[in-house]
Order: sequence, then C-alpha cells, then structure tokens
Amino acid sequence: MATIKQYIAEHENRFIEELFDLIRIPSISAKTTHKEDMIRCAEAYKALLLSSGFEKAEVMPTKGNPVVYAERIIDQALPTVLVYGHYDVMPAEPIELWKSGAFEPEIRDGHIWARGADDDKGQSMVQIKGFETALKLGYVNCNVKVIMEGEEEVGSPSLEEFCIEHKEKLRADIILVSDTSMISKDVPSICTGLRGLAYWEIEVTGPSHDLHSGHFGGAVANPINELCKLIAGLTDEDGKITIPHFYDDVEEMSPEEREMIKQIPFSEEDYKKFLKIDAVHGEKGYHTLERNSSRPSLDCCGIWGGYTGEGAKTVLPSKAYAKVSTRLVANQDFEKISIDFVKHIKSIAPDYIKVKVTPLHGGSPYICPTNLEVYKVAEEAFEVAFGKRPLARRSGGSIPIIATFERVLGLKSVLMGVGLESNAIHSPNENISIDIWKKGIEAVAEFYKRFGHK
Amino acid sequence: MATIKQYIAEHENRFIEELFDLIRIPSISAKTTHKEDMIRCAEAYKALLLSSGFEKAEVMPTKGNPVVYAERIIDQALPTVLVYGHYDVMPAEPIELWKSGAFEPEIRDGHIWARGADDDKGQSMVQIKGFETALKLGYVNCNVKVIMEGEEEVGSPSLEEFCIEHKEKLRADIILVSDTSMISKDVPSICTGLRGLAYWEIEVTGPSHDLHSGHFGGAVANPINELCKLIAGLTDEDGKITIPHFYDDVEEMSPEEREMIKQIPFSEEDYKKFLKIDAVHGEKGYHTLERNSSRPSLDCCGIWGGYTGEGAKTVLPSKAYAKVSTRLVANQDFEKISIDFVKHIKSIAPDYIKVKVTPLHGGSPYICPTNLEVYKVAEEAFEVAFGKRPLARRSGGSIPIIATFERVLGLKSVLMGVGLESNAIHSPNENISIDIWKKGIEAVAEFYKRFGHK
Repeated sequence: MATIKQYIAEHENRFIEELFDLIRIPSISAKTTHKEDMIRCAEAYKALLLSSGFEKAEVMPTKGNPVVYAERIIDQALPTVLVYGHYDVMPAEPIELWKSGAFEPEIRDGHIWARGADDDKGQSMVQIKGFETALKLGYVNCNVKVIMEGEEEVGSPSLEEFCIEHKEKLRADIILVSDTSMISKDVPSICTGLRGLAYWEIEVTGPSHDLHSGHFGGAVANPINELCKLIAGLTDEDGKITIPHFYDDVEEMSPEEREMIKQIPFSEEDYKKFLKIDAVHGEKGYHTLERNSSRPSLDCCGIWGGYTGEGAKTVLPSKAYAKVSTRLVANQDFEKISIDFVKHIKSIAPDYIKVKVTPLHGGSPYICPTNLEVYKVAEEAFEVAFGKRPLARRSGGSIPIIATFERVLGLKSVLMGVGLESNAIHSPNENISIDIWKKGIEAVAEFYKRFGHK
Repeated sequence: MATIKQYIAEHENRFIEELFDLIRIPSISAKTTHKEDMIRCAEAYKALLLSSGFEKAEVMPTKGNPVVYAERIIDQALPTVLVYGHYDVMPAEPIELWKSGAFEPEIRDGHIWARGADDDKGQSMVQIKGFETALKLGYVNCNVKVIMEGEEEVGSPSLEEFCIEHKEKLRADIILVSDTSMISKDVPSICTGLRGLAYWEIEVTGPSHDLHSGHFGGAVANPINELCKLIAGLTDEDGKITIPHFYDDVEEMSPEEREMIKQIPFSEEDYKKFLKIDAVHGEKGYHTLERNSSRPSLDCCGIWGGYTGEGAKTVLPSKAYAKVSTRLVANQDFEKISIDFVKHIKSIAPDYIKVKVTPLHGGSPYICPTNLEVYKVAEEAFEVAFGKRPLARRSGGSIPIIATFERVLGLKSVLMGVGLESNAIHSPNENISIDIWKKGIEAVAEFYKRFGHK
C-alpha cells in the first residue's frame, strides 16, 4: 500500500486541477452581481465532496448564500470531526496589480497564483484532499462532517442562525479548520488562540452649541479636552488597561506557552524597521509577540471633533467623538467587559460634560488548550508532515465564528491553517506554495491516521 | 450755547440719515464682487469726515482695500487722538432670516436694523458724530486723526504694513476705538483687555501605515491614544495649564479689578441654562467672569484621526492630529509661549511616537490700565452719558490689531465700544438701539470736552 506521501504525489496533478476548477468560479460574496457564481461554487464543492469520499452532500439554504454540507458517517459510536471552511473569496481589486488573472489560476515558481489560492479554496482543499488521502488509504476511523459557508468574507451573517437551526445535524466532537497562517515556511505552527473584541463609540457633549473660544474658553469645559482625558486614562504608565475588573478573567499564559513564544523567530529591529518606529510600546512585562496575541489591548480606532480643516480656526466645540476597541483574550467575556466599560466611563465622567457610550460590536476570544487530546493529535500530524514540531501560537486577530461555534455548538476548533503571511490573502497576487499545500494535505491525512484509533 | 445732549437731539435725524447712507453701500470685504463698493464706501467716509469737521481726508491705498485717513491738527503742542474704525462689514447671509433688507436700514422699536448698524458703521459714527458735536460746541482741544480700514472682517491683512509705512503720519498719544460691547444697556462698561492667542497643530505619527488592530494592537503605540495623553496632560486637575513657564508673565488681577468683576450682574444658573451644561469648569480659585477674560485658557479646537465613519471598523492608525489654542492674557508673550509649547510637547513625547508641532497663529494680549489718565477721562465721559460709572471689563476674545497698534505705534487704545450682545453683529437682524447710540455719541463728545483741557 502507498504511503500518504506517495498517494499525494500520485494525485497531485488532479488535486491541483480540482482546485483550479474551484478558483475559476469568481465566488465574490461582497458583490451581489456574483449571486449566481455563489450557487455555482456551492454546487462545485458539493460535487467535489462527493467525489472525495463523502457519502452525502447537499447545498443548504440560509438567509444569505447557501452552506454546503457533507458527511461520511461510519459508526455513531466513533468520534465525529466537523470540518469548517468557506467557498467565498474577497474581490480581486485592484485588478491591474495582478501578474496573472485573479480567476485564471497559474503555476509559477512552485506557487499557485489566484484569488482563493490560499483563502480559503486552497486551504479548504487541504482538508478535503487530506480526508480523501486518509480515506483511500483506509486510515479514517471517525465520522466526518463538512460545512462550507459562502459568507465568511462578509462577516458570516447567516452562519450563527444556521448553526442554531442545525445544531443536531452538526453534532461532533471537534472542529477542524484550515483558514489561518503559520509563522513561516520553516517554522510550522498551529494557531491556538484568537482574540475577542469589544468596541464602543463615545460621545462627549459640552455646551449645547459651538462656542467662541475667546468668550467662553477657560470657563466652560471643552469636550475634546475632556474626551482626551477620558481616553488617556484608559491605560496607565505600564500599558495596563485601567477599566475596573478588566483583567479579572484573563487567563495568564502558562510557562510552557511563554517558552514556545520565545522560540518564534523575531527580530525587534526588523519589526521596528518595517513599521518605521523607534521603539515598540505595550504592556510592561510582556514581549511584543505576547502583547499582540496573548494579552488584551485597547486602541482608539478613531477620534473626531471641532475644526479639522486647514489653518487656525478657533472654536470651543459642542461635541467630540471617539471609537474605542479592546482586543480580549481567554477567558474574558466581551459582554461583561462591555458593561464594565460603559459603567467605568460613566463613573469617571465629570459633571460638567455629558458622556454617551454606545457598544457597537463584540466577539468572544477563543483558545485551544494545547493539552487537549485532539490538539496533540494535530501537533503530531504537523510534525510528521513538516518535519518539525509545530509551535502553538495565538493570533492577535479575531475570527468571531470560531467563538460562535464554541458557544452555539459547544465545540473546540483546531486551527490547522497552513497559510503564510507572504500568501497575500485579500491582496493582489494571492498565492500558495504547492510544497506547503501538499504538506498541509499530508498533515490532515496524518491527523485522520491517528484520530479515533486508540 | 446748546449742551451736548441738545446738539445731539437737534441733529439726530441727520446723524441717522448719514449712517443710513453708509449702510446702504454693501461694503462686504469677504467678497471680491464687492470691490467697487469698498471704494465707494471709502469715498463716502472721506466725504463724511470732511463734513464732520476734519480738515483733511484722503483715501489711501494699501495692498488690499484702501484706508480712509482724516485729521484735524490744531496745535502740535497739544495731545493727539487717533480714532480707529472699519468701514467693511460681514456678509449678510443667511439673507432669508432678515426681517428687513440687510442693506436697507429701517427703524423699528427704537432700533436701527441693518448690516453694520453696530459693527462698525454705527459705532464708527459714534466716534465721528461725537467728535463733530464736541467740535461744534467748541470743546475740542486736541489734534484728532482718524483711520478707517476696509479689511477688519477678514483679519486686517494690510493694516500692520500700513501702520509701519505711515508711522509718522499716525503719531498720536492715544487711540480711541468704538468696536466692542458693554455688559448690558443698564450696566455700561469699557473694555479694558483683550486676550492674546497662540495656536498650534500637533501631528502624532505611530507606525508608518495603518495597521490591523488585531495583529498589532497592544504591541505598537497607537497615535490617537498617545495624542490624547499629550493633550490630557496639558491641563491639570485644578484647571491649570501645565506648560512650563506658562504663567510666569501672567499679570495677576488687582483686588480692585476683581472687585469690579464682582459687580457685573451674572447668574450662573442662567449661564448654565443657556449652555445646557450641568456645571461650569475652569481654573480653580477664579470666577467664571475671570476665567473667560482675565485668565488664560487652553482649548483643543479640533481633533481627528483613524476611522470616523459609521460602525465599528477596527484600525490602529498611522497618524492623529489636533489643533490646540491658548488664549493669553497680559503680559504673556505669544511668541515665547509658542516656543515653550513646542519645546514642552517635544520633551514629553515618548520615543515610540513621532510628534510634529506647527505654530499656526499668534497674537498678543492687550490691556488698558484703568489708572491711565486717558482711561479715567473716558470713564468720566461714560458716567455722564450713561448715568453710571462704567465697569472696567476685559473681554475674553482677541482683536489682534489692537495689540499691533501697541507694538508698532507704541500706543494704548481705549475701547469705548457701546455695542450689546443683543445687537447680533455678524448675524441676521443686526441692530443698534438709537438711545444707546446717542449716549455713545454723547460719551465721545464728553471725552473731548475733558481731554487736553487740563
């Protein structure tokens, strides 16, 4: 019998052709003119899933673009894997910067170049072809379900409702997702955390109308000055966030996790050069790679008020506004944080201004514990495929749907993404290295070779 | 011989007609389409000054609109008064809110209604007709010169150069100006101070380009957060400005001045109601009427950066900006303050951001000491005309040209303005009470009756 590597090598050309067929359908969810392409793409995935070894597949309606569902149930007593991916892609603009057509996949320098080559057509194929490989070699000893959504790039507006409605159908033990990135081609990693988010708009009102700063300046509170004081006070000299109880639920990193972060190749000099800054800045006692992923942060994302045109117009404005966001980490509850924030701002606002705080958005953080049995299986699978034990690395960004899966379906996700920063997702000349792509397929197959076999 | 009151009563109708003739010329300096009206109006003032008793009058060119100059020299040994006023007016928009034509003066309810009824055609007529009255009654015992500029409403861009060029011609002992307001019709006052101004734009740069707040938030300084810290730190909990040496040259109010301020009718409740605020706020230890006129202030006039549209876009922006102004009081030097401010911001800016501070504007404060002999003459003149000793009151605003006169010509100005806040200068339905206008003329005549007679 062939090994996993051999099977992949033998079928590589077909795998690539199958991926190319998916890529050629411009399934751009952000543009309503592509509605028909969405359906075409969902149907193409359905056919592909059936030909890849799934026994049942269907295109299921949602409020928005349909979800493709597939399953291969071999024994209800065995554990079940739920694979998540998305078949929609970002728009290709600016078109003129592409070296080859965004929807005309091309191989150059050992890479596949096209919109979706990585995100998420290429990576979802890692899951599907990894499954096929394991299945054909007789390694699959679990039930496998798949959902491919068509609205990930527009914020997954229909998926939570879909999960609630089909909770029973989606019952599983673990979710596998290939939609994240590794540290580098030489440093394989598994994404073990995503930050959550809480976001507010603050409106400060001073006098009821704009005033002459000569006639009133000094005697009436200025809403911009006061807004600045409110925002300035949200972080202290040590870079800590001052909202009461903010850190109460923060799960401190384990010594093991901090040790692993130290192994990530990182040059502060290169980082500063890239950002053109003279110094990094963040929470005291933590490294840049901890600050941007495993620790919460507070950023004012926008601020405005008064005169913002050219020159020196004097005014004591009536209002000033800011948009403030926090990135949250395990186990912070964004709803609790949101309430605490509003309460805090209200409590520190002086009586000479009026302050309105409006929560605008929120999402839970996500963490995949590295001592989870299934994580260890994925880790081993990566080690076999990439020749190195993958580092566990949390990402600083947010993928709200992963936290939604945990909340609605009660399931942890293992984020087996094999993307690279250089893959230029969402940008012109998106690409994926065929070598890494094949190693990803191998890792998924190795996962099935181990999972459910004890 | 008639008294001053009698002369004014006898000639009232002519005075009003003369004012109406000036008002009917729409001398709007902000609009280039009114260039010819500016010349017409200057010529009309020249004719009026000659018919009012000045011996020489001329329309003198400047880089911009001409200056009307007039003089009546009776004896080089006698003191000389220089009268300053302006013949240009603000645009009349919004036209639809006027009850009668902006340039068709009308008398209703004892008021003259028209653009310029107060600012400054009506008030400059107070000076001219006050002089005429005193002259006709044989009271004038000094030399009198007049300059009427045509660009006050656009910031007097040509007047400083005019003063430098004609310094000898403008030689005088004191300047009289009627272009300010009194506390109320029942509380006559003389404006004894104007605040100066220093104004800067601050640009804070963090990373060289906008960043994903998930991937970088917490590890890279956010320029909005940092700008807020800079601005928040410019004032302390007592409402004091923290720029080093800022208060070094501030002239403290005399106990007498503070006593006079206490006599100004002021209801904090009405003030708060008018501004719809729950509390006033300013420098600890000072009253609202001191804070807004006799004490310096710091206002952020504008702020902007990051995402300011609808909703919850997350971004860690590259740049943030603010416009900061201070109002200065005697004897603060705006150039020194400006340098101190830039130095201070530079010194407190942390190394993880770049800060650029650009001075945009500045003007000196002005103070007319109430123990000045000529001030006492004006005070007596007001007391006779209005039946009450006028309060000395500083204004919180700035009229940069008054400080320029002091700097270039070395002359103090006595600000004999008889406007009222209800006169709605710069707004629709500008007006002046004929009764107060006549009292103003009387006060100027009473001034000449006293000045130069000892």
